[in-house]
Amino acid sequence: MTFKELIKKDQLIVEEHLMKFLDKDLTYQKDILKSMKYSIKSGGKRLRPVLFMETIKLFGKNPLDYMAYACAIEMIHTYSLIHDDLPAMDDDSLRRGQPTNHIVFGEAMAILAGDSLLNYAFELLFEDMKDSINQNKAEASYEIAKAAGMFGMIGGQVVDIDSEGKNIDIETMEFIHRHKTGALIEASIVSAAILCGANSDELSNLKRYSKSIGLNFQITDDILDIIGDESVLGKPIGSDEENNKATYPKFYGLEKSIELSKQIRDESLKYLEIFDEDKVFFFKELSNYILERKS
Amino acid sequence: MTFKELIKKDQLIVEEHLMKFLDKDLTYQKDILKSMKYSIKSGGKRLRPVLFMETIKLFGKNPLDYMAYACAIEMIHTYSLIHDDLPAMDDDSLRRGQPTNHIVFGEAMAILAGDSLLNYAFELLFEDMKDSINQNKAEASYEIAKAAGMFGMIGGQVVDIDSEGKNIDIETMEFIHRHKTGALIEASIVSAAILCGANSDELSNLKRYSKSIGLNFQITDDILDIIGDESVLGKPIGSDEENNKATYPKFYGLEKSIELSKQIRDESLKYLEIFDEDKVFFFKELSNYILERKS
Repeated sequence: MTFKELIKKDQLIVEEHLMKFLDKDLTYQKDILKSMKYSIKSGGKRLRPVLFMETIKLFGKNPLDYMAYACAIEMIHTYSLIHDDLPAMDDDSLRRGQPTNHIVFGEAMAILAGDSLLNYAFELLFEDMKDSINQNKAEASYEIAKAAGMFGMIGGQVVDIDSEGKNIDIETMEFIHRHKTGALIEASIVSAAILCGANSDELSNLKRYSKSIGLNFQITDDILDIIGDESVLGKPIGSDEENNKATYPKFYGLEKSIELSKQIRDESLKYLEIFDEDKVFFFKELSNYILERKS
Repeated sequence: MTFKELIKKDQLIVEEHLMKFLDKDLTYQKDILKSMKYSIKSGGKRLRPVLFMETIKLFGKNPLDYMAYACAIEMIHTYSLIHDDLPAMDDDSLRRGQPTNHIVFGEAMAILAGDSLLNYAFELLFEDMKDSINQNKAEASYEIAKAAGMFGMIGGQVVDIDSEGKNIDIETMEFIHRHKTGALIEASIVSAAILCGANSDELSNLKRYSKSIGLNFQITDDILDIIGDESVLGKPIGSDEENNKATYPKFYGLEKSIELSKQIRDESLKYLEIFDEDKVFFFKELSNYILERKS
């Protein structure tokens, strides 16, 4: 299977399970379920659960045994997008070409649908633990919860909001990226490794790998906003400069940023060397894909 | 110790632990911590963690060993109040005489502080489990998460919002009470019992007991809004009728509602009979207090 076929296959499995978890026959709560499903359905690449599933496979296990975790991560990601889009936050009325949750269901329902997805994510993890408990499950869940909260994603989001319209330094920019998007990407890989009983060497290499790809997604995003092809990218370029956004090219210049992204790609490949060559196909391809992508 | 002294003592312990859990030295996240602490500090009776702690004592265990759970429950309650008060929801600018979170910190921060408290509550539970795991902890946590989410508190909140300005039937009113406030009260008692390894007879009696007191808090609230003493109550009476709110006296009449509340009190006392007489002092007093309270 090619890299893209692997992703497509995982995406379909995640989407099937997300819908299964949300397929509840509730009389009184049907409105909130509708609102939750709307945002879950209009999801994008399912990057986080795909990373989770591929890490499970790296350890020779079956992702189908861990779908509560894969779906919980995607629910946490989706709740954060619903709340980010709210008028009091980024005030976005479109996401991936579709009206945002509060535009369709109203602000009150969008707040509650977000709350409910966050809550349901953890409910699924506890439910899985309640049915058969082990230390790895508790540790993996803690990793996910920590990455989602004030020490992770929410922490990054707060600093991002605080920094709006201000000239921030490079440390603050990196804090925002590492937390707002990096933390949950890292947890997607690390939690899967913990569930599979990874040893400390494997864990620390996968941690570094996931930090590298999280960072490189950001740097190449910034680069694409300058040299990308609008028709392939599906959105206008140059918006970062227009909004005076803190970006890698702004701090380091375009040339050096491209150089940096290659260097990080090479580093990320090194972290994979401790694993069997035939097990890391997906992760190697991913490292290269991030650099070569056009959108 | 009297009933009131017991409550006071538990409250102080909860407040001390809440502050300890939120006493983090974070450079970038200090704004959100401030906002979280503000709402946690301006808390009220700490009813839910007090119920949790007293249930732990009922089983002869030490509540100090379970403070992560007591505090998680109070954090979940507090997040729900922050989000309830938002302009898009109830649009309240005062709570317990103090400006609500979004009035002080702005809407964006209030949304994130609520999200963060909900997330941190579960983070604390996973952290506790990670350090020493057992089946009871997973089951108790699941009970709390379920009570907080769309099958519990959030479910009640959604129906409450949907019902605004409408004439609802008694089943809908009861659904709202049972879920919006009842579910987390019930989980406070039931999760503590599970943690202590309660048997199925003890569990089902405590479930019924907590349903009774949750219901009776609501009925007596409705009654006090008609016959309460404004100076003792600390708020004007008659607001339910003015707002055409669905209440027990509206459906059953005042006389019958008072009768009903006594009947439920008597029932709640019966559920305590399977426990040792000397262990249920607090719960007996509570059943009576709900009926006799003036505020």
